[in-house]
Amino acid sequence: MPRTKPEKGWRHKVHEVIYEADTPMGKWFDILLFILIIISVLLVMLESVKWIDATYHRSLFVFEWIITILFTIEYIARIVTIKKPWKYIFSFYGIIDFLSTIPLYLSYILVGSQVFLAVRALRLLRIFRILKLVRFLGEASQLRKALKDSRAKITVFLFAVFIIAVIMGTLMYYIEGEQAGFTSIPTSIYWTIVTLTTVGYGDIAPITPQGQLIATMIMLLGYGIIAVPTGIVTAEMGKQVKSNKDADDDQFVHVNTQACTTCAKEGHRDDAKYCYNCGSEL
Amino acid sequence: MPRTKPEKGWRHKVHEVIYEADTPMGKWFDILLFILIIISVLLVMLESVKWIDATYHRSLFVFEWIITILFTIEYIARIVTIKKPWKYIFSFYGIIDFLSTIPLYLSYILVGSQVFLAVRALRLLRIFRILKLVRFLGEASQLRKALKDSRAKITVFLFAVFIIAVIMGTLMYYIEGEQAGFTSIPTSIYWTIVTLTTVGYGDIAPITPQGQLIATMIMLLGYGIIAVPTGIVTAEMGKQVKSNKDADDDQFVHVNTQACTTCAKEGHRDDAKYCYNCGSEL
Amino acid sequence: MPRTKPEKGWRHKVHEVIYEADTPMGKWFDILLFILIIISVLLVMLESVKWIDATYHRSLFVFEWIITILFTIEYIARIVTIKKPWKYIFSFYGIIDFLSTIPLYLSYILVGSQVFLAVRALRLLRIFRILKLVRFLGEASQLRKALKDSRAKITVFLFAVFIIAVIMGTLMYYIEGEQAGFTSIPTSIYWTIVTLTTVGYGDIAPITPQGQLIATMIMLLGYGIIAVPTGIVTAEMGKQVKSNKDADDDQFVHVNTQACTTCAKEGHRDDAKYCYNCGSEL
Amino acid sequence: MPRTKPEKGWRHKVHEVIYEADTPMGKWFDILLFILIIISVLLVMLESVKWIDATYHRSLFVFEWIITILFTIEYIARIVTIKKPWKYIFSFYGIIDFLSTIPLYLSYILVGSQVFLAVRALRLLRIFRILKLVRFLGEASQLRKALKDSRAKITVFLFAVFIIAVIMGTLMYYIEGEQAGFTSIPTSIYWTIVTLTTVGYGDIAPITPQGQLIATMIMLLGYGIIAVPTGIVTAEMGKQVKSNKDADDDQFVHVNTQACTTCAKEGHRDDAKYCYNCGSEL
Repeated sequence: MPRTKPEKGWRHKVHEVIYEADTPMGKWFDILLFILIIISVLLVMLESVKWIDATYHRSLFVFEWIITILFTIEYIARIVTIKKPWKYIFSFYGIIDFLSTIPLYLSYILVGSQVFLAVRALRLLRIFRILKLVRFLGEASQLRKALKDSRAKITVFLFAVFIIAVIMGTLMYYIEGEQAGFTSIPTSIYWTIVTLTTVGYGDIAPITPQGQLIATMIMLLGYGIIAVPTGIVTAEMGKQVKSNKDADDDQFVHVNTQACTTCAKEGHRDDAKYCYNCGSEL
Repeated sequence: MPRTKPEKGWRHKVHEVIYEADTPMGKWFDILLFILIIISVLLVMLESVKWIDATYHRSLFVFEWIITILFTIEYIARIVTIKKPWKYIFSFYGIIDFLSTIPLYLSYILVGSQVFLAVRALRLLRIFRILKLVRFLGEASQLRKALKDSRAKITVFLFAVFIIAVIMGTLMYYIEGEQAGFTSIPTSIYWTIVTLTTVGYGDIAPITPQGQLIATMIMLLGYGIIAVPTGIVTAEMGKQVKSNKDADDDQFVHVNTQACTTCAKEGHRDDAKYCYNCGSEL
Repeated sequence: MPRTKPEKGWRHKVHEVIYEADTPMGKWFDILLFILIIISVLLVMLESVKWIDATYHRSLFVFEWIITILFTIEYIARIVTIKKPWKYIFSFYGIIDFLSTIPLYLSYILVGSQVFLAVRALRLLRIFRILKLVRFLGEASQLRKALKDSRAKITVFLFAVFIIAVIMGTLMYYIEGEQAGFTSIPTSIYWTIVTLTTVGYGDIAPITPQGQLIATMIMLLGYGIIAVPTGIVTAEMGKQVKSNKDADDDQFVHVNTQACTTCAKEGHRDDAKYCYNCGSEL
Repeated sequence: MPRTKPEKGWRHKVHEVIYEADTPMGKWFDILLFILIIISVLLVMLESVKWIDATYHRSLFVFEWIITILFTIEYIARIVTIKKPWKYIFSFYGIIDFLSTIPLYLSYILVGSQVFLAVRALRLLRIFRILKLVRFLGEASQLRKALKDSRAKITVFLFAVFIIAVIMGTLMYYIEGEQAGFTSIPTSIYWTIVTLTTVGYGDIAPITPQGQLIATMIMLLGYGIIAVPTGIVTAEMGKQVKSNKDADDDQFVHVNTQACTTCAKEGHRDDAKYCYNCGSEL
């Protein structure tokens, strides 16, 4: 996107780097941020491994502080450079960013606040922002479209699976009883889903002939109905492949990942001068 | 459906609320009933969890009685307001409704009658009546149609799977013997289906090299032939997607969930004046 | 098939009943035989269950003898009424029939000959002869055709899977070693196939981090490449659905299950007067 | 390929036998080599089985030496008869060939070098060279093409699966903790992938109700999204089936497996006189 207005202030410049990815600086910022996120996730992982934590506790702690400070700077920069900060703060990514930054500070006040470190893994979802930049954009959006179009069918399917699980789980609880591990109906429903989805841990397994007979039926059912979501998605994809051939990309306009400085909406056309959502100049 | 005949008695009005879902009252009744069903199923679940039953036994017992009384009223209302009660009583839903209501009464006469509480889970199937009202109608009926059209093929497939399981199960019984858990041919067949459907509990597993070799073949077979039901359903769905495009809904007439007061048949056209099944006025 | 030549001998008549299924008698014979086969398989199953064998040993023994005698009569009748007995005796079904009949006689000479009883399960395959008679004929042959057309692709696929299993299995043997259950390379390959096909018994499971990493890759591979046989069969079926629509059955000639009295070939046209294989009169 | 120039030296003749498969000698060489490879892999397998190694150690050792010497001769011949040996030595197959030959020699210097024997299994990949010669060529290349075309989509999919695994694994670590086997986040991620791919070993399984609830969601997710790779590959194959029908093979030129003596490139047209890659005479 051509940007020829030099009168824009430093906030605007920083905004462009942080929120957008269509300038070289913005691209680099996104990639660097993603590497930081990966390191932060790896840190949480390594800390969870007993012997690594025991041996390198000090180094991990230092790295943890570096990451936390960098994340804090990024978080403040994001708030400062956007015109409507609340939009960002209460957005999905805003909350994740906050929860990823806070644990270390909290650990001095609250014990057990390190549980929030798990939230950091969610920051990995930013990869999809970066993927937008590269050739996977089209592929990812095709997948998303196929999944979106088949959402209603898949909801009906999951509903049916869940009702089957409740009915069969209740039945198995009365047939098998506690000695086989079916200690309660919720546990029994858990087992039914483990069986229906063909996962089959084996931590709970039927031992009576009747229980094994019903288990067999649940398995065959699960083995058979996996065809349903597969059929749904495949049919959608087949349709898409066809319509893609028809369209051959000509009705699409290339959009970029630039976000409006006012309302933070993304997906503007490359030649857009004003935000399609709030009308403010880009 | 326009209903402008005020001369109809209270029975007819109650019938309309209970059996139909195309009036606001009927809709609310169905939704309320479904919430009651969910609560009743949750009660059965909670009672099965040891510590919850121990702590809240009294409250659960009271709720159980409230649910039972409400179900009793509903059951009586259903019988009273229909012209041919036996049609309802011996219908699939009629029997489920009866078995869902009776256990608490029976528990004073028969010990162990609480097993019938499991039947309540079947009442969850009423959800499909409610789904009819909303946008999932089309999706669900498409799924049902695809499954129905591929029923014959899937029957042949399940038959083949079952014969393979019997043959392989018998073979494995003689190869592995009791020390590996293959205690009898039925158990061995159970194991074969566990393996063929890729569930794989691991409660029984081959230990001899020959047994492991045959197990490997069964697995590869199961891994390969899962393609068959998937292929069947996908082909059917692909066909349907195509025919849907061709038809574009124009040969369909909208039907509603109103049930005939005489014969309880559903699926009348919106503009129907007489039951298509028994000819009595709607 | 019209049969108006009364001069044919008793052998021919018996042949028609035993080998063919297009006369009422032949149909009844096939159905009766299948019921007998099911009973014979059930007998073998029941004998394998300890407590049933202990309680009803005598009755099972008597039934076993009845079945054996009936099978013997059938076997002799099949040999006597066919013109070229060796064709039958050394055919697939001929050998199965023989091995299903012999065990009880052998048990007086050889100990352990009851292992051959397992062969009886193979007689269940006769169901496909009976299915030919009914509406599943078309469905079954469609399935068979789809599988046959995709045979070459599936062979290549299974070959690739097998090579992956050998490579990964060998690797895992050196990584995990004996303490995790990877006692030898064949066992390790067995584990790899258990994992790749997503069966996952859990009798053997990696315990080292490197082993778990490779296991993860094998799982994702298995999870991903299951798409391949599915894609193959689905594409074949989609093709078939299409060509079926094109053809609409008009290039097919109805064939029956009548077997030639000379060469035992089946699948003659309904209006056939001579065997298409050996030319002898039917 | 007609070869009528007798002035070519012995190197060229040997090259033709070793590197190419379009002469009778070349074909035989490839088949013989593959049998040798299978024997070499079987040897490694048998050595890993305790009791076989204990009983037949001497014979296995002798066979191992025979194989090693034959492989050594082949390796030297490959280097000598190619014009640019480094091309071969540092090619994928060159490295595998070297690592498959060296272990026995190394075992006199280095202890534990037998780990390299595992590399031999990779030599099995040569089967795909031989398959090129037969009718599976077309099938294999169709499969490869379908997988190649759907590579980008499958990468996006695996990426999404991996991020889900990291997020869910981290969550489960904090929910379940050590007593259930979730000893660290990496282990927890391993468990998530075991569950998501429906493998389900059961070596680690959730025991708390919350953990089981989330496990249930992971299973349903895994059960549902398996539709995605299947849909991708099926759509690609469907496309291919269609385009195959359109093309009917007429734009393809038959290529052979002859390798250029200078640059070792394969896939020349049957009527090629010069290498399409380096221009040297074939």
